[in-house]
Amino acid sequence: MTVYQATASAPVNIAVIKYWGKRDTKLILPTNSSLSVTLDQDHLRSTTTSRADPSFDHDRLWLNGKEEEIKGDGRTATCIAELKRLRKEVEDADSNAPKLSTFPVHIASYNNFPTAAGLASSASGFAALVSSLAQLYELPASPSTLSLISRQGSGSACRSLYGGYVAWNVGTDPSGVDSNAVEVAPREHWPDMHALICVVSDDKKGTSSTSGMQRTVETSALLQHRIKHVVPQRMADISKAIQERDFDSFAQITMADSNQFHAVALDTAPPIFYLNDVSRSIIQVVVEYNRLSLANGGGYKAAYTYDAGPNAVIYAPEKNMKEIIQLILNYFPQKDAFKDTFALFKNDKAEGKLPAGFNKNVAKVHQAGEVRNLIHTRVGDGPRKLSSEEALLGENGLPKTLA
Amino acid sequence: MTVYQATASAPVNIAVIKYWGKRDTKLILPTNSSLSVTLDQDHLRSTTTSRADPSFDHDRLWLNGKEEEIKGDGRTATCIAELKRLRKEVEDADSNAPKLSTFPVHIASYNNFPTAAGLASSASGFAALVSSLAQLYELPASPSTLSLISRQGSGSACRSLYGGYVAWNVGTDPSGVDSNAVEVAPREHWPDMHALICVVSDDKKGTSSTSGMQRTVETSALLQHRIKHVVPQRMADISKAIQERDFDSFAQITMADSNQFHAVALDTAPPIFYLNDVSRSIIQVVVEYNRLSLANGGGYKAAYTYDAGPNAVIYAPEKNMKEIIQLILNYFPQKDAFKDTFALFKNDKAEGKLPAGFNKNVAKVHQAGEVRNLIHTRVGDGPRKLSSEEALLGENGLPKTLA
Repeated sequence: MTVYQATASAPVNIAVIKYWGKRDTKLILPTNSSLSVTLDQDHLRSTTTSRADPSFDHDRLWLNGKEEEIKGDGRTATCIAELKRLRKEVEDADSNAPKLSTFPVHIASYNNFPTAAGLASSASGFAALVSSLAQLYELPASPSTLSLISRQGSGSACRSLYGGYVAWNVGTDPSGVDSNAVEVAPREHWPDMHALICVVSDDKKGTSSTSGMQRTVETSALLQHRIKHVVPQRMADISKAIQERDFDSFAQITMADSNQFHAVALDTAPPIFYLNDVSRSIIQVVVEYNRLSLANGGGYKAAYTYDAGPNAVIYAPEKNMKEIIQLILNYFPQKDAFKDTFALFKNDKAEGKLPAGFNKNVAKVHQAGEVRNLIHTRVGDGPRKLSSEEALLGENGLPKTLA
Repeated sequence: MTVYQATASAPVNIAVIKYWGKRDTKLILPTNSSLSVTLDQDHLRSTTTSRADPSFDHDRLWLNGKEEEIKGDGRTATCIAELKRLRKEVEDADSNAPKLSTFPVHIASYNNFPTAAGLASSASGFAALVSSLAQLYELPASPSTLSLISRQGSGSACRSLYGGYVAWNVGTDPSGVDSNAVEVAPREHWPDMHALICVVSDDKKGTSSTSGMQRTVETSALLQHRIKHVVPQRMADISKAIQERDFDSFAQITMADSNQFHAVALDTAPPIFYLNDVSRSIIQVVVEYNRLSLANGGGYKAAYTYDAGPNAVIYAPEKNMKEIIQLILNYFPQKDAFKDTFALFKNDKAEGKLPAGFNKNVAKVHQAGEVRNLIHTRVGDGPRKLSSEEALLGENGLPKTLA
């Protein structure tokens, strides 16, 4: 008996032009375009196995080994229905194609980063789900077409359908057909882009991005200005910076847009705060690091960005990463010794250290653990097709590892 | 021999529509109108004695007993020169008037609140200086005319020339002649407005408002939208709210404008942060306090506002103050027992306490001293003329108390 099963992995992406606000909450159509860098799946990824089988009773989903209900009007159900619809088109065009669209599916998904990493898994998760089903169904769809589906799972998931540098077009069509992801440049165009994720401890429960962004749409006067007059120019400018591998421009726009996203969150009634005092300190350290370089006739050396939480992502050319890690370790000592993914520290230990001329008073030295974890990664590739050896479902069609 | 001397006091004011941005840094002309509540001089004030004497060698100034240099092109010198010019007009019109405009002046100024109170003293300080010289010179000038002069000492000082509710007009004339303060309503119109100042400890040195606001003018795209499209409407709306003693509208606009000021500060490159985690917690507490009241069919009960620092000012009708103080004491215990200015706590001690139904998890209970000081005050009157008994200069023309 043929087993219809496929396994895919998909990456995390971190936006440099932020998505904040929906004009259609059901289709997940944004109020502005956004742009992200895809991170390397060697370090952070979601893996999903999908299997279609007529003997299955109904569609089922397991996340990290724990079954999750697929609600009829929910986002996961929407994605599965859309992919079955595309499969049906394949079947209608080729009478020899097995009628997979009529079979229930079992889907198992796993994130190799714990929730404790402080990273949203919905983007990589929905991208992996859509990728594995598209493989299972042998869909002739481009990543851009698939991005239209993953967008309906989680907005920013559409950007995880490509590697490298990815734009999500705001679009104008009410159906959402032109609100897709497109590749601005592949990873190979500018592979030098590294990233340091600083996971910040927080004792406050943040506002969910879904409810937060709608509150901003409803109450912030500044958001409308951002949407109409600021983002379009920044999208053009940062795309050009990426084409030209111009880190100076990339860094300035990235930091300005992170600031502006948090500004419109603050301009919301009641206000939304995602940055805490530790986040602020990381910003001050990066600002001083750039100031020092600029004062010495150099360019920007690093760019911070923050999503809907206190964690920083610091983008920088690879050559600056050692210095940046030392800077962060100086102000934010770790509880456990930092081990670098890229083995930048071979004979020397990774220790806190400031560059000559650095104004050490820009921040205080924090207590160990206030930055809980550091993850060093870089720009990465798009969704991967994995072999059956990496499948998460066993022969019985159930997850190999249950929670 | 006649002694030409006058003593005046002037109040602190706290804006509810914020001033942030100059279009002329020399004349101190703002980029938008602003509006403030004058606080009671019974609690917070600057007192200034001015004396003109032909035997004096040159103009001299003492602040809190310590002599400060009056720089030739500085703001204090500008104010003194303007007032001497107006005195000269009096002398030109009346040949019997003593030629005080030709005499050097000695000026002694004193703030009854320590720097540690976390309140800017420049507004009350320049208002008191201008008021005392105007009295000394017997100027026929209205508070509005005098506000044009104190504005050149420190922008927000122009609003301390009136009691009650005061607007500072943005104006359009390049000379600044129409950028004056006007009374929106006197204290007597709405005397019920109380204020709780929460002085927040901070281990970071903030960006000075003078340099910070110019950086915002130069780099924030959102500021321009605020100036053109948001503030004019808010000025009209909050003036109406004051006329109608409509605390619901007053509170909503006050909190929105505080949020937006801090939003444009964050939208600056590099970003400016004035709120810290303690400030954020106070906001969450006030938001929950209002939510609870609204959920029970009531109205807004309190409004927070923050200037260029982490300290909160909470405006509220008098009847809510006891509850507010108990709320704040619950989350921000004091090192020393709180003593209320208005003796709200007579038989019961001022202790932390939450209203029934209050979601206590909106903030954590902070360590004693994170809110360093609480000052309970209310809307107050404009500059006062004080008797010679309260003069800060002795018979010899020098400060009675040297630092």
